[in-house]
Amino acid sequence: MHGLMQDWPLTVDRILEHAKNWHPDRKVVTRSVEGPIVSVTYAELYDRARKVSNFLQAFGIKTGDRVATLCWNTSNHMEAWYGIMGIGAVCHTLNPRLFAEQLVYIINHAEDRIIFTDLTFVPLLEAILPHIPKVEKFIIMTDADHMPQTKLPNVECYETLLEQASTDVVWGGFDERTACGLCYTSGTTGNPKGVLYTHRSNFLHTLMGLQATVLGATPKDVILPVVPMFHANAWGIAFAGPAAGAKVVMPGARMDGAAIYELLETEGVTFSAAVPTVWQGLLQHMRENKLKLSTVKRVLIGGAAVPEMLIRAFNDEFGVEVVQGWGMTETSPIGTVSNLLPEMEGWSQDEQIKYRVKQGIPPLGIDLKLEDDDGNRLPHDGETYGRLLIKGPTVAAAYFKGEGSILDKDDFFDTGDVATIDPLGYMQITDRAKDVIKSGGEWISSIEIENLAVGHPKVELAAVIGAAHPKWDERPLLIVKLKEGETLDKQEHLDFLQGKIAKWWMPDDVVAVDEIPLGATGKIDKKLLRERMKDYRLPTAG
Amino acid sequence: MHGLMQDWPLTVDRILEHAKNWHPDRKVVTRSVEGPIVSVTYAELYDRARKVSNFLQAFGIKTGDRVATLCWNTSNHMEAWYGIMGIGAVCHTLNPRLFAEQLVYIINHAEDRIIFTDLTFVPLLEAILPHIPKVEKFIIMTDADHMPQTKLPNVECYETLLEQASTDVVWGGFDERTACGLCYTSGTTGNPKGVLYTHRSNFLHTLMGLQATVLGATPKDVILPVVPMFHANAWGIAFAGPAAGAKVVMPGARMDGAAIYELLETEGVTFSAAVPTVWQGLLQHMRENKLKLSTVKRVLIGGAAVPEMLIRAFNDEFGVEVVQGWGMTETSPIGTVSNLLPEMEGWSQDEQIKYRVKQGIPPLGIDLKLEDDDGNRLPHDGETYGRLLIKGPTVAAAYFKGEGSILDKDDFFDTGDVATIDPLGYMQITDRAKDVIKSGGEWISSIEIENLAVGHPKVELAAVIGAAHPKWDERPLLIVKLKEGETLDKQEHLDFLQGKIAKWWMPDDVVAVDEIPLGATGKIDKKLLRERMKDYRLPTAG
Repeated sequence: MHGLMQDWPLTVDRILEHAKNWHPDRKVVTRSVEGPIVSVTYAELYDRARKVSNFLQAFGIKTGDRVATLCWNTSNHMEAWYGIMGIGAVCHTLNPRLFAEQLVYIINHAEDRIIFTDLTFVPLLEAILPHIPKVEKFIIMTDADHMPQTKLPNVECYETLLEQASTDVVWGGFDERTACGLCYTSGTTGNPKGVLYTHRSNFLHTLMGLQATVLGATPKDVILPVVPMFHANAWGIAFAGPAAGAKVVMPGARMDGAAIYELLETEGVTFSAAVPTVWQGLLQHMRENKLKLSTVKRVLIGGAAVPEMLIRAFNDEFGVEVVQGWGMTETSPIGTVSNLLPEMEGWSQDEQIKYRVKQGIPPLGIDLKLEDDDGNRLPHDGETYGRLLIKGPTVAAAYFKGEGSILDKDDFFDTGDVATIDPLGYMQITDRAKDVIKSGGEWISSIEIENLAVGHPKVELAAVIGAAHPKWDERPLLIVKLKEGETLDKQEHLDFLQGKIAKWWMPDDVVAVDEIPLGATGKIDKKLLRERMKDYRLPTAG
Repeated sequence: MHGLMQDWPLTVDRILEHAKNWHPDRKVVTRSVEGPIVSVTYAELYDRARKVSNFLQAFGIKTGDRVATLCWNTSNHMEAWYGIMGIGAVCHTLNPRLFAEQLVYIINHAEDRIIFTDLTFVPLLEAILPHIPKVEKFIIMTDADHMPQTKLPNVECYETLLEQASTDVVWGGFDERTACGLCYTSGTTGNPKGVLYTHRSNFLHTLMGLQATVLGATPKDVILPVVPMFHANAWGIAFAGPAAGAKVVMPGARMDGAAIYELLETEGVTFSAAVPTVWQGLLQHMRENKLKLSTVKRVLIGGAAVPEMLIRAFNDEFGVEVVQGWGMTETSPIGTVSNLLPEMEGWSQDEQIKYRVKQGIPPLGIDLKLEDDDGNRLPHDGETYGRLLIKGPTVAAAYFKGEGSILDKDDFFDTGDVATIDPLGYMQITDRAKDVIKSGGEWISSIEIENLAVGHPKVELAAVIGAAHPKWDERPLLIVKLKEGETLDKQEHLDFLQGKIAKWWMPDDVVAVDEIPLGATGKIDKKLLRERMKDYRLPTAG
């Protein structure tokens, strides 16, 4: 028997409509790509987004069509985002940091009909133009005065289009499972894979994110998403900000410490979200210039493990609570958030830090599972390593144009991460599944050894990979890039690790190299490193 | 084109499962009906709820069957609630404060197969037993030692059933639009009407309620829902508490000031939700005994307009923020919440109070509309009165076994309330639509005049109704019940209103009566009053 509640499809156009109706004068402030800091109200942004829909329809865009954005975090980007999604088209956020060949692959694979681009990326598009022949139109996000000379064909000026467009358009009214957004993961293996979000998944993700333990946005908040909209949807802030009636501050193209600091202070930011490197840049800028933060209360950091030093520095020197989050493009992205539990409030900072450095507990709507390679559930003891699987209405079921299922028998998605879960429920990522070293049936975290080994004063960069061993299958091999002028003494590095890791984790050998390869996102490219070391044999391998 | 996210039906069994998985040791504390304060963890509550499902299935309960509860707020009630809903049966919360004939009507109309009852209500059920012949079984929520002598047939002891039941049961796995809960409105006109919630509506209501501006629950919260689970689902707290991993404190049968105060202090309650009268009782108790509140930070009050005095007293004397909410059984119930906006933070308390006494702004997921009788939208100027209509996934579309639609052309539900909405978006209820006085095409709030007139020192109770008038259609008639020994001087009451209301709101006559009839919920029964005054003619009516 069905209940008798209203049919009200969860479509994201309702989010901006809510902001327009109930928080019309609240602002979105942007450091524009052209330079000046500009602002629009939600009422104005709503009208401009409807004009985007209006001109897209005039260009023949229909429900299901992919329209791409190659843009920084700006209010213009938010307008395009809602303008595309409101009419049932798919907003494909392109990551300008990808290699050119990856961008070409993604644009063609998605069959993007139109690309919105910031001025910054016009040269990038010009360079790949011959390889993306099916793109029908390029809309440059600027006004007539700033339109560049370009060899891009079928170019339109964004502000000119808006001036000529009407707000007369129908938003929503379609099934909540309609595709809404598309974002490709930049995996180090194989081609990028597209995650195709639905209106329903984005709406539910917004509600999940509005919880006090996650983003916790309210009209009293001023939110600065440093994390880009092309990076896992800016962790939902382009939805959660208007949904809560919060002021949003968009950093545009500048994410250096000085630029971020200026926005935090002049706009009275209370909450931010960023990857560790950006926040490290901010820390350095503030220390060098002896600056303080006067309004920021809380910052959510994710995208990579947050160094303990960063948590301590922001807490001790700036009175800011650093909260770690974990997620993936495939999870919309919120997976877990690491807040302290009430029983920890009386603990020492050192005791608290042990939990703050973990990735945390899932909110309602996310299930997690820890399994061994045979699919057996592993204990939540904080020590046993296992494959991390995830399930929920905001988690991918398949990749765009992908083949077959990516879910296990219980409909969980395999994150490709190895993790522990402790008795209080805190999940901690320990490694990528493909990088973990499998020694005698037990798992060794390559990342944990690397993080320790890099602390040796002679080491500039350290990497650990599994090397073949006839008895143990794999044993850890420590690869170091030494600082200028240093020479290798293997025992020195092993001694340095002594007592910090279990004896059976101790690398069987240490090798010095001139270069440790890094991928597009700055992480060590283990795949390439393994490839380069393929002829290496462990001395213990007999 | 559909997106590619996981299929994860929004069913409420997932809420308690989430609490069991991620907050297993957090507690639900109850002042038991038998007397002592008892507690269970979410892990224990989950197992007990699954045993409820198990024995209900053994009794033949299937998906869609209605199972009723006649219970106070207790952890046992929560177990029954999830145990019933988890297997797709419908949890019908009965309100013991209804008149016996209303209870009989509701039980029969719902076709309740089983009734869970607290010890308190056994005599009530015994009294109506001859009129509810289709109820197959009564489960008394106590242990074997406390089982009463009763003439109820087919009686079971709750704890004995639990001892014999297994946790082996399948929860969920059905369509998210499956009926989940049933709650009847106790309207003053016609028979009670049943609102049939879905799993989806309850799940979405939970997420909406978890927002920082609504319930804002986190694991650090200790929540005491004084508002009963049979009164609009305890405003969602039986879902939101476990969803957030918050400790919940259940008051059982005792809701007097002393009992509530004891629980607030001994259990470290941080947040509560209650109707004004309960909170007034608490205020009186604390003032008389010179007590303070050491942990409560915020209280959500709804169910009736919150007197300004109460807001000021809790803020000034106890440092507690009183937040007003508005909703209805038909709206799950959250409709609006009255938080202050950031621009009000520097305002004086007197300026802030003007917004705190309003019912507030809707959260994402709720649309409101203000209309005149002809369906024209009215301005949000804070002055224009209009019919309040509401729409959202948590709002009723029809009544159980009701005929025809209760929605307007835009699928909005008519609340039956008259309200204003101000330029900042704050909604304020001014009257019930059927009580508002329509004079010369303009609307006059009966409640506003009553609230003023009752302030006259000679008046014990005041009511205002519309009396027929040949020129103006209706004009206000003030009806007063005077205090013992007082005599009526009409002009005195009109003089008392002078300057406090618009001239054209001034009642055309004043009448003294021996009794003003009150309904089951303590509100003035205007329908009966109008019936009694049907032969009255205004002196101004010529």
